[in-house]
Amino acid sequence: MRSELLPPNGGSSIIEIGDVVTEGGVTIPAARLCLHAFYDDAHGCPTEAARRPIILIEHALTGDGNAMDWWSDNVGPGKPIDTERYLVLCANVLGGCQGSTGPASLHADGRAWGSRFPGLSIRDMVQAENQLLEAMGVEKIAAVIGASMGGARVLEWTLMFPSKVTSALAIAVSARASAWQIGIQSSQIRFIEADPDWQGGDYYGTGREPNEGMGQARRIAHLTYRGELEVDERFGTDPQRGENPYGPYRRSDQRFSVESYLDRQAEKLKERFDAGSYVVLTDALNRHDVGRGRGGMNAALGSSQVPTMVVGVDTDILYPFHQQEHLSRNLGDFIGLSKITSPTGHDGFLIESRQMGQVLEKFLRKAELLGEVVE
Amino acid sequence: MRSELLPPNGGSSIIEIGDVVTEGGVTIPAARLCLHAFYDDAHGCPTEAARRPIILIEHALTGDGNAMDWWSDNVGPGKPIDTERYLVLCANVLGGCQGSTGPASLHADGRAWGSRFPGLSIRDMVQAENQLLEAMGVEKIAAVIGASMGGARVLEWTLMFPSKVTSALAIAVSARASAWQIGIQSSQIRFIEADPDWQGGDYYGTGREPNEGMGQARRIAHLTYRGELEVDERFGTDPQRGENPYGPYRRSDQRFSVESYLDRQAEKLKERFDAGSYVVLTDALNRHDVGRGRGGMNAALGSSQVPTMVVGVDTDILYPFHQQEHLSRNLGDFIGLSKITSPTGHDGFLIESRQMGQVLEKFLRKAELLGEVVE
Repeated sequence: MRSELLPPNGGSSIIEIGDVVTEGGVTIPAARLCLHAFYDDAHGCPTEAARRPIILIEHALTGDGNAMDWWSDNVGPGKPIDTERYLVLCANVLGGCQGSTGPASLHADGRAWGSRFPGLSIRDMVQAENQLLEAMGVEKIAAVIGASMGGARVLEWTLMFPSKVTSALAIAVSARASAWQIGIQSSQIRFIEADPDWQGGDYYGTGREPNEGMGQARRIAHLTYRGELEVDERFGTDPQRGENPYGPYRRSDQRFSVESYLDRQAEKLKERFDAGSYVVLTDALNRHDVGRGRGGMNAALGSSQVPTMVVGVDTDILYPFHQQEHLSRNLGDFIGLSKITSPTGHDGFLIESRQMGQVLEKFLRKAELLGEVVE
Repeated sequence: MRSELLPPNGGSSIIEIGDVVTEGGVTIPAARLCLHAFYDDAHGCPTEAARRPIILIEHALTGDGNAMDWWSDNVGPGKPIDTERYLVLCANVLGGCQGSTGPASLHADGRAWGSRFPGLSIRDMVQAENQLLEAMGVEKIAAVIGASMGGARVLEWTLMFPSKVTSALAIAVSARASAWQIGIQSSQIRFIEADPDWQGGDYYGTGREPNEGMGQARRIAHLTYRGELEVDERFGTDPQRGENPYGPYRRSDQRFSVESYLDRQAEKLKERFDAGSYVVLTDALNRHDVGRGRGGMNAALGSSQVPTMVVGVDTDILYPFHQQEHLSRNLGDFIGLSKITSPTGHDGFLIESRQMGQVLEKFLRKAELLGEVVE
């Protein structure tokens, strides 16, 4: 491994990964991924860290490479994903907007990619990450771990590059997009595309951004991430403070508390996320299907040679638990199914730290045993 | 009962119900409801029908008074709600657009109500229906039956006019809106209000209708009505015929089959429904809370003196079954809880005719016994 390419502990670097050719046949020349690395120790020394077992974390749709930030209870010194023990890598996804090449990145002609950015599949993202590891000189990953869109990449890792992955943990994900997911996701894409500020995807540099459309998408998306039990416990039918949604006429400035909450989610997203990336990554979720070109979904899962553990959340309506049960019946080298019990829905993998931590610890003990047998 | 006001069997009439004063204090002068009646027999005779026990059916959000149409397996001669045995009434809701007074109706000044139409609560709708029954000279209903928004009206009937209702069947509903429902419903309202053709609610007569916004609302709403299992069984990841959603670039005219299905749902709704009504009725669902002004939700339910049966669908994500279980624990005169088992989600009450029919027959047998004891 080329330890000189490792970002400083807790930091990030932009890594050149060469040209990426998508499944659809489009070349993204001189692509880059933004890689974060975590390897706490007395010295924080890259050469020592480069000898550790590597855990690759795959982030979810609007996540980023800074896994110690968004998964703070589970990634860090002494945490279940122990940054004193492993070299933990997490790269912003291809098509994203947190340092990796995406629609907002500059094309060779100096303008943003915009509508010229190709449609991506989950496989294209994994292809790019494999090129990243090749550029780094990494030959073997002890474990690849991810949830939601990250879980989709985990499954593709096990099928595209089984010889590089010793073990895998797929969280809150399915073998392919369900029609319901495609329905709700493609609706979100339409909200953005219907925003006049979208300008066909070429809004960069125009001074206008399709934030209204992305906010609408986010409101709906957030309600698919959060369990209705949790949302109701927090907000119920409470009016927003100082507002009265029970007035004589409906007025959009007289809101329930939950409306204000969703407004904040929409506001926060536009501060940190690009609508073009939102469309590309959401479209990639629609295209997720481990079975495509592999003789069908169950044949593909059955061919998997990487020991894979599966986790789900009991109240997840976006990736219902029966989808994880389906994986448990069909994965070729299945090593366990865990269920997080929580009112929070899909986001339980982020919120229920204690349960998620238990699962991670159990999984990594298994993975280490596997590593010893394999190596 | 003034049988001369009864519409012909299978037909409808517009009934003047006088002024309706809303909870918010707005007067809707000279309101009208469109009433449908069903009373098949050898003669189809109103005077004979007027002596029968009355079943009042309450329709759901985009439904209408023609219950024999949208509930055809369950309403009709020899059907569970037997139109040869009962006088079956079903009125289009106040605020609707199928003949009853709503935002698209003409105001006294000759222009549409539009933005002048008040916010409605579920109670306002029931208030209007009570005025309808008073206008008809009806003093007693053997059973009030409804699902979803209709179920919300059923619950309010039992609390507002308990002496007029012998029995009640509340289907796929809750004691109040949940925060998740308010979140998804208020998002739908925003899609419509954000459509430039909405024009603040005063688009009538302008030649422009906010159909794009209502279509977006419908796409999301439909996905909350349909279970993901059923949607996935029908569409999976199939591309729409002749289209390729896996192409090199995302294109909105290259759709998955489920997208085309949702497009059709959106198209169909704008043919038959008014966006102003959609906003008013959806807002009324947000305001649904049997506890408001009655000492809280459980106190209100506990005070109910009308024998009430409750039904839900196991895969309903909009009105999850735990909400019907909650009703079963708290209703003051609870007579049974039934569960429809189905992959279809909320719409199971429309689709699973056999199960729904069993429940209706069981309920009406109970209701008849209650009627005999009461009368």
